[in-house]
Amino acid sequence: MTRSVDLNADMGESFGPWVMGNDVALLNVVTSANIACGYHAGDADVMATTMARAVQRDVGIGAHPGFPDLQGFGRRRMALSHEELANLVTYQLGAARAMAHAAGGRVRHLKLHGALSNMASADAGMARACYEAALKVDPDIIIMVLAATPMEQVVRDLGCNWAGEIFADRAYEDDATLVARGKPGAVLHDADAAAERILGMLGEGAIIAESGKRIPTRIDTICLHGDGAEAVAMARALKARLLAEGITLEKFARRGS
Amino acid sequence: MTRSVDLNADMGESFGPWVMGNDVALLNVVTSANIACGYHAGDADVMATTMARAVQRDVGIGAHPGFPDLQGFGRRRMALSHEELANLVTYQLGAARAMAHAAGGRVRHLKLHGALSNMASADAGMARACYEAALKVDPDIIIMVLAATPMEQVVRDLGCNWAGEIFADRAYEDDATLVARGKPGAVLHDADAAAERILGMLGEGAIIAESGKRIPTRIDTICLHGDGAEAVAMARALKARLLAEGITLEKFARRGS
Amino acid sequence: MTRSVDLNADMGESFGPWVMGNDVALLNVVTSANIACGYHAGDADVMATTMARAVQRDVGIGAHPGFPDLQGFGRRRMALSHEELANLVTYQLGAARAMAHAAGGRVRHLKLHGALSNMASADAGMARACYEAALKVDPDIIIMVLAATPMEQVVRDLGCNWAGEIFADRAYEDDATLVARGKPGAVLHDADAAAERILGMLGEGAIIAESGKRIPTRIDTICLHGDGAEAVAMARALKARLLAEGITLEKFARRGS
Amino acid sequence: MTRSVDLNADMGESFGPWVMGNDVALLNVVTSANIACGYHAGDADVMATTMARAVQRDVGIGAHPGFPDLQGFGRRRMALSHEELANLVTYQLGAARAMAHAAGGRVRHLKLHGALSNMASADAGMARACYEAALKVDPDIIIMVLAATPMEQVVRDLGCNWAGEIFADRAYEDDATLVARGKPGAVLHDADAAAERILGMLGEGAIIAESGKRIPTRIDTICLHGDGAEAVAMARALKARLLAEGITLEKFARRGS
Repeated sequence: MTRSVDLNADMGESFGPWVMGNDVALLNVVTSANIACGYHAGDADVMATTMARAVQRDVGIGAHPGFPDLQGFGRRRMALSHEELANLVTYQLGAARAMAHAAGGRVRHLKLHGALSNMASADAGMARACYEAALKVDPDIIIMVLAATPMEQVVRDLGCNWAGEIFADRAYEDDATLVARGKPGAVLHDADAAAERILGMLGEGAIIAESGKRIPTRIDTICLHGDGAEAVAMARALKARLLAEGITLEKFARRGS
Repeated sequence: MTRSVDLNADMGESFGPWVMGNDVALLNVVTSANIACGYHAGDADVMATTMARAVQRDVGIGAHPGFPDLQGFGRRRMALSHEELANLVTYQLGAARAMAHAAGGRVRHLKLHGALSNMASADAGMARACYEAALKVDPDIIIMVLAATPMEQVVRDLGCNWAGEIFADRAYEDDATLVARGKPGAVLHDADAAAERILGMLGEGAIIAESGKRIPTRIDTICLHGDGAEAVAMARALKARLLAEGITLEKFARRGS
Repeated sequence: MTRSVDLNADMGESFGPWVMGNDVALLNVVTSANIACGYHAGDADVMATTMARAVQRDVGIGAHPGFPDLQGFGRRRMALSHEELANLVTYQLGAARAMAHAAGGRVRHLKLHGALSNMASADAGMARACYEAALKVDPDIIIMVLAATPMEQVVRDLGCNWAGEIFADRAYEDDATLVARGKPGAVLHDADAAAERILGMLGEGAIIAESGKRIPTRIDTICLHGDGAEAVAMARALKARLLAEGITLEKFARRGS
Repeated sequence: MTRSVDLNADMGESFGPWVMGNDVALLNVVTSANIACGYHAGDADVMATTMARAVQRDVGIGAHPGFPDLQGFGRRRMALSHEELANLVTYQLGAARAMAHAAGGRVRHLKLHGALSNMASADAGMARACYEAALKVDPDIIIMVLAATPMEQVVRDLGCNWAGEIFADRAYEDDATLVARGKPGAVLHDADAAAERILGMLGEGAIIAESGKRIPTRIDTICLHGDGAEAVAMARALKARLLAEGITLEKFARRGS
């Protein structure tokens, strides 16, 4: 059974005068932070502050690139060529690396954001274009993928360092995609229920779908959400529960398949 | 007498579907290129293309950060704090480094663009905020400064690698600032006259003002302009003339004061 | 037979310091101009200049709203809700109306740009969301639609003023869509051939597909392209040919179905 | 003594997914709302929502244009030409008019935002460029000016409808500028003290500076702030106090000098 896991959350999603999320509270819970890089959120000043806070708490820093769509927060699907995708990953990762370095840290992982992630999780070609671009900038970078999706196959093919991610609060379909938000039971609001499910998945090394089906995969990190006081409370409760069960919470290792 | 000098020009100033300048022609003339980094011009796709072209011709790559003002092309003065300035330099330099690396090259120098440069050339505090940020990202980077301005004093104080720049086609006032464009003789349109003036300055190691006054300084690079067919023709003629005079044209060295 | 037709072209597609197209030349050819409104091209200063030029030549002014994607020039598909579509049309049309008014003119038509147009031409719901928003701002506005597409059905259903558009230089499939650019014969480069085809279509009141099939529709305006000296030359030649054939070139009338 | 006054506040300053202020609460307090127009805050979707809420409560709608600086929230000084200023006012006012119309209302006033307002309040030329542009779009629009500043002289010269504004919570210098925030007493945090001061000013038809000096001016509207729960509480308390004193709170009239 996996006795160690990483907790990650999206951060640095403020922009200019607009604050989003409760980064400070969440940084005290997670072991890895996915930090927006300026295209869909997170200007250079927000990045500087967020990077510094992550370094201070020894939280693992990840670049979290998204589509160039600030108004839509990178959540609207856009049709970009593989070359455009590669360039936007390279640009944002490069910016994140310099900001992290200036803050005394370094970028150790990469996670795609929003619609870019959704599209790439179902389109291996898109995922590959993005991941190859990131690996060209830093061959040792750890690519965070949605476990058991085409993303995972891509990183296995690339032979790079990667981390498989599951969601703390979402139910799964039999094909490892998330149950749509509208459906009953799609989102868990209870930390104990979420912890129970995660413990089961960690124990079995598999995503457990709502139907009970097991989808074997590698689970390195659990995605928490940080919007709203409730989310932070749930993240804290989940962390406490995992610790109580003897799970070690630490940054995922730099390892391949 | 200086027998070697660098020729530089701003490049990669296209954006999306909009083309600016004649980069290909100019890349065959210069030894260093100042490449826009996305804030005032030059999106990630333009950067990728420009970096690749520079690498191909072994032209020295410089990051050319500007104000976040696309519509104004970074030419409108903006009031930013030193912290904001540092962050925008870090961000853009980081992005440029990754793009250059992906193209098989590397960023070796930094030059401020437009209003950011104008303001920093008269405000040592601004210049210092920008340069310190760049040096934090890369302690070996070469900072290109307007020769004999407060910028030069800042790099001398910082003890970093730097290159002093003069303009090929502009007349100088006694305080080493440029004669305002409106005034007669402010801009040279003749390559021979420009070459003559540059040869004089290189020979004396000083800016020669319109009044005849000598302002001793280090001249490492000469700024050419690339907008319009005429500009490229002048750049070519100037290069030919300098070569004919036995001047070696090569990238400026990595050296401090 | 139709003895009168409008010639339209996209204009005002410059942005900040970047120039696109040859608006001045083209304004002397067309009778209607589709002017970008700031989201995909055309900032407020460009709009002011373009509106003034159109007013000066009594060219009909159209608002040409697009997706909020400057880098992609509004040509990349984006997934927006109908509400977002309505709001972006309202916003851009409102801005265009004020700019036109300040220049001494007024917006008389609306045409969707780029990917927004492509998507709406195949999706009646999208078209309807956009057109209803425009009509709410100005119930008399003339909606320019791609003739014989779902767009046409929408304006007929809405009972508003509209103008049916065909392309001067493109071949048509049997379902009134354009032959894909890659295919042989998809794009006409010869003004005489284009004029011949247009005269045929005007004469029959139908799109004539490559196969020879007739698709009856109302042809009120012909779309010209303006990028490149060649395009302007072709536009001029086409205009001369149409005039020689006794066709009156004038702004389309304000009329419904 | 003035027995009627307007209460205004800035609103619609959210952007994309980022929420700013408590518009709903504040709309129940004020009689006029200054609504951001997309350049420094307030995208088309935010505008649509905000306009609808204002219409619902019969709150007077104002266009609140700012600099094209989203990251800086329009608070960073930028050097723009008078022509650029005119165009950005025209564009944003036009967009606001269409959005208001779509929501069933109309724009009745204009107030400049942030650094644009600060600069124009000390530079009559800038103020005039902006106001003339607005009046060209709508000759009946009411221009809101900082009372007793050069802005007031400009609207008096223009002979247009205008409203003089004072701040509820700020102390004044002898020249009618605000006491700098750093200084003791610059900002009032107590609703009673603020109400007392305002009642004094309304009663005398003059700004009462900290020194006690009277600066005669026309006071049509009082600016409230809406950021933070405290601000809304203060706004409510101030309103209650003014009502208790028999002051009528209503939208400023459409009147000139």
